[in-house]
Amino acid sequence: MTAMTTTSTAPATGAAPSFADSHASDPVTLGWMSGSPPPLDKQVRFDDGSFLRFPMWRWSFSHWRELVPTVNVARGSSSVCVLPRAERSDLDAVRLMPLRATAEITWAESLAANYTDGIVVLHRGRIAYERYLGALSAERPHIAFSVTKSFFGVLAATLVAEGALDAGAPVRHYIPELAASGFGDATVGQVLDMTTALRYTEVYGDPTSDFADYARATGLVPRRADYAGARAAYEYLATIGKAGEHGRAFTYRSINTDVVGWLLARVSGASPHELLQARLWSALGMEDDAFLQVDSVGTPLVAVALNLRLRDLARFGEMLRLDGAYNGRQVVPAAVVADIRRGGSREAFACAGYATLPGWSYRNQWWVSHNEHGAYTARGIHGQAVYVDPKAEMVIARFASHPLASNVNLDPNSLPAYHALGRHLLSNPG
Amino acid sequence: MTAMTTTSTAPATGAAPSFADSHASDPVTLGWMSGSPPPLDKQVRFDDGSFLRFPMWRWSFSHWRELVPTVNVARGSSSVCVLPRAERSDLDAVRLMPLRATAEITWAESLAANYTDGIVVLHRGRIAYERYLGALSAERPHIAFSVTKSFFGVLAATLVAEGALDAGAPVRHYIPELAASGFGDATVGQVLDMTTALRYTEVYGDPTSDFADYARATGLVPRRADYAGARAAYEYLATIGKAGEHGRAFTYRSINTDVVGWLLARVSGASPHELLQARLWSALGMEDDAFLQVDSVGTPLVAVALNLRLRDLARFGEMLRLDGAYNGRQVVPAAVVADIRRGGSREAFACAGYATLPGWSYRNQWWVSHNEHGAYTARGIHGQAVYVDPKAEMVIARFASHPLASNVNLDPNSLPAYHALGRHLLSNPG
Repeated sequence: MTAMTTTSTAPATGAAPSFADSHASDPVTLGWMSGSPPPLDKQVRFDDGSFLRFPMWRWSFSHWRELVPTVNVARGSSSVCVLPRAERSDLDAVRLMPLRATAEITWAESLAANYTDGIVVLHRGRIAYERYLGALSAERPHIAFSVTKSFFGVLAATLVAEGALDAGAPVRHYIPELAASGFGDATVGQVLDMTTALRYTEVYGDPTSDFADYARATGLVPRRADYAGARAAYEYLATIGKAGEHGRAFTYRSINTDVVGWLLARVSGASPHELLQARLWSALGMEDDAFLQVDSVGTPLVAVALNLRLRDLARFGEMLRLDGAYNGRQVVPAAVVADIRRGGSREAFACAGYATLPGWSYRNQWWVSHNEHGAYTARGIHGQAVYVDPKAEMVIARFASHPLASNVNLDPNSLPAYHALGRHLLSNPG
Repeated sequence: MTAMTTTSTAPATGAAPSFADSHASDPVTLGWMSGSPPPLDKQVRFDDGSFLRFPMWRWSFSHWRELVPTVNVARGSSSVCVLPRAERSDLDAVRLMPLRATAEITWAESLAANYTDGIVVLHRGRIAYERYLGALSAERPHIAFSVTKSFFGVLAATLVAEGALDAGAPVRHYIPELAASGFGDATVGQVLDMTTALRYTEVYGDPTSDFADYARATGLVPRRADYAGARAAYEYLATIGKAGEHGRAFTYRSINTDVVGWLLARVSGASPHELLQARLWSALGMEDDAFLQVDSVGTPLVAVALNLRLRDLARFGEMLRLDGAYNGRQVVPAAVVADIRRGGSREAFACAGYATLPGWSYRNQWWVSHNEHGAYTARGIHGQAVYVDPKAEMVIARFASHPLASNVNLDPNSLPAYHALGRHLLSNPG
C-alpha cells in the first residue's frame, strides 16, 4: 500500500527515504484533479492505483467516495451538537522534544512535519484549536483508516456490556462459516484485543504480505485482470489459518476487525453501518453523514474505511472523555469507557515490539498509553487519530496524509506533541 | 443495459416478453442483498453485471452508491423547505384509459403496472399523495437516470440567460478538444435540444449499439479484462463523428448531455456537480444531499447518474411550476422556464417517431407535451420522471424499476394517468 515499513518496526534512523515535504506536496498547489477533465499528469485514479501513491493520496484521502463504492451513515434529522469555540492563540508556540531528537520543535512545526490535513483540539469540550490544510476543509470527509476500528470496537463492547455478545464465547459460536478457520476457536474478546494467533502478516507496501491479498479481496486496491482470489471481505476471512495459540501476544491484524463487524451483524441482525448509524451517528449530534467503503457484496469495510468530518471525529472522542455521556444522553455505557481506559495486557502488547509505544496496551480496538494523563487513542495509517487525554480534559482529532503508512513514522513528532499540549492545557486552563 | 427495445420504437404488441409483476419482483420480499453476507443467490453485484439485470435492479436503483464511485452534492446548512401535506384519499380511484387499451384502470393500478418505487403528487405545492414501494423509502436516494439531464439543461439555460454561455456559438468555441469531433460545429443550442447529427446510436441492451461503448467508457457497466477503449466520458466524446446536418432532427443521444456538462465546466470554472450544488441544491431547501456517479477521472455523469430523494425531485418540479421562484427566492430566471414551456421544434421531434409522444417536442433537455394543460416532463429509463402540469397546478415525481428501459413501455399507463390526475385535480381542487 505504501513505499515501506511495517506496523511493528521502527523507521530506519538516518537512512529514511526522502519525500517532498508537506508544503511541496500540497495537493491544491500541485493541482491534482484540477480541470475539466484534469490533464493526464494531474489525474488521480483508482484503476491505475495512482490514488494510493504519494503525493497523489494527499488528494485521495479527502475524496475517497469519488474512487470507490460506499454506503451512507446518516446523521438523521436531530440537531447538531454545536461545539463551542474558545480558540487559544498560545498553542502554536508550545514546545516539545520529539522522540530520539536533540532539539525541540513547536506544536505548529509538528503539524507540518506530520503532513497534517486537519486538526481539532477540544479543551473542556470547546474548540481550542482548528486548522485545515491541503485538500481538506471542515465540510469535507476524510478517510479515517484504522481509526474506523475503534468505532466498531466501542459498538462491540457496548453489545458485550448489554449482554447481547459474549466476550468469552468462541467466534464459531456466532459465525459457523469461520469454524474451520484460524478464528474458529478464538474468543470474541481475543478478536477485539487482537491477541488471535493467525497465519496472516500485515506489512503495508509489501506485495508478498497477506495484507496485499486482503486489500485485493476487499477492493481496497484494483485487481489485476487475471485475479482469481477472494472478492469479498468475509470470503477472505474464511481462508485464514491458525498459527500458534490465541490470547498470548498482541499482533495488529486488520482482519480481526472484519470479524468484529461480522459478529455485530450476527448478534444485532443489522449491517455494521446500520448499527453505527443507530447507536452513534444519530446520537452524537454529528454535523454530517459519514460513509464506509463497501466490498463487492456490500459489506462495509469496518477495519479501514470510515470517512467522516474531523469535527465529528472530535465529538466521538469527547463522548468517550465524558465517560459515554454526551449530547444530553448516555450514548455508551460508562463501563465500556472505563474498560478501555483500564487497557489490555501490557505483556501481550510488548510482544509486538513497538519502539514508540513502550508500556502501552490494546483494548477493544483502542491503543492505551498508560501514561500519567491516562491517555488513549485510535490510530490509522498515514496519521489518522483521535487522542483522548482525560487528565488534561483534552481531545485531539487529526487527519493526515504522511508519505509513510505506519504511525511509527509519525509518533516521534505526534505523541510528544499531544502530551505537551495536554500538559500545557493542564497548567494553563485559560 | 436491458433485455430489449430502443427509445424510438414502440414495444411489440402482444408478443412482449413476460416478466414477474411488481409484486412478485419486490426486492424486499425476494431478499436481495439481505444477510451478512447475502447468500450467493441473493447477491447483487457490480462486477458480474447482476446489478443491471431484472429483477435485481429493483434493489440497485435504490442503492446506487454502494455499487459505484460517486461525488456528493451538498444541500448545505440552510433550512429544509417543508412541503405541506394535504393528502387526498380520492386519487387512488381516479380512472384512466391506457393508450391502445380497451378497458379503464385506476390510478392505483397504474402504479403497480409501472413497477413504481415511489411517487409524490404535489397539488398547489402540498403533498396530495405519497407512496414508497419495494426497496425505496422517503429517506433513500434513487437513481434518476435521464431525469438527470433536465437538471443540467436548466443550469445551462440559466447560464445562457445570464449571458455566460452563447446558445448560438459552436461547441468548438468552448471545447477545442471536440473541434474535430461530430460536435465541433454543432451549436450549444443544438446540443441542448439534441438536434445534433452524430455517428452514434443509442439502443439500450444492444451490445452492438454505440451506447454500449458509452456505458463501458463512463463506467456505467463493468469492463471486460481485455477492454481497450475509452475510460472516461470526455475521452469517449472526442471519438464521435458527424453523420448528416445538425439542427434538422431530434435524436435522443445521452452524449449530448455530457457535452452540456463539459460546457458548464468550461464557462463556470466549476465542476457540473459544484454548479448543481451552488445553483440548485443549496437554494431549493432540499431535504438531503444528492450524489452523482463519476467516471474514472472524477467527471460526474450528468446524463444519467444523479441520485436523490423523491421529495427533492418534487421540489425541483415545483420550482419550475412556479416559474423559477421557490423557497423565498428566484432560483432560476422565469425566462428559462417560459422557454422550456414553449418547447422546441415539433417538426424536428416528429423525425424520431415516438409512437407514444405525438405532437411533443424537446427543449433544453426537457420533454414538452404541448397538451391542453401545457405539461412538460423530465424522463429517465425504467420510469424515472418529474411531470409538471401548470394548468392543474400539479407536479408528479416518480421513481420506478420497470423491467424494460424505454419509457415507451411505461407511457401507455403513465401519461394517461398523469393527465387524468391533472384533470381530476382541476375539477376537484379540494
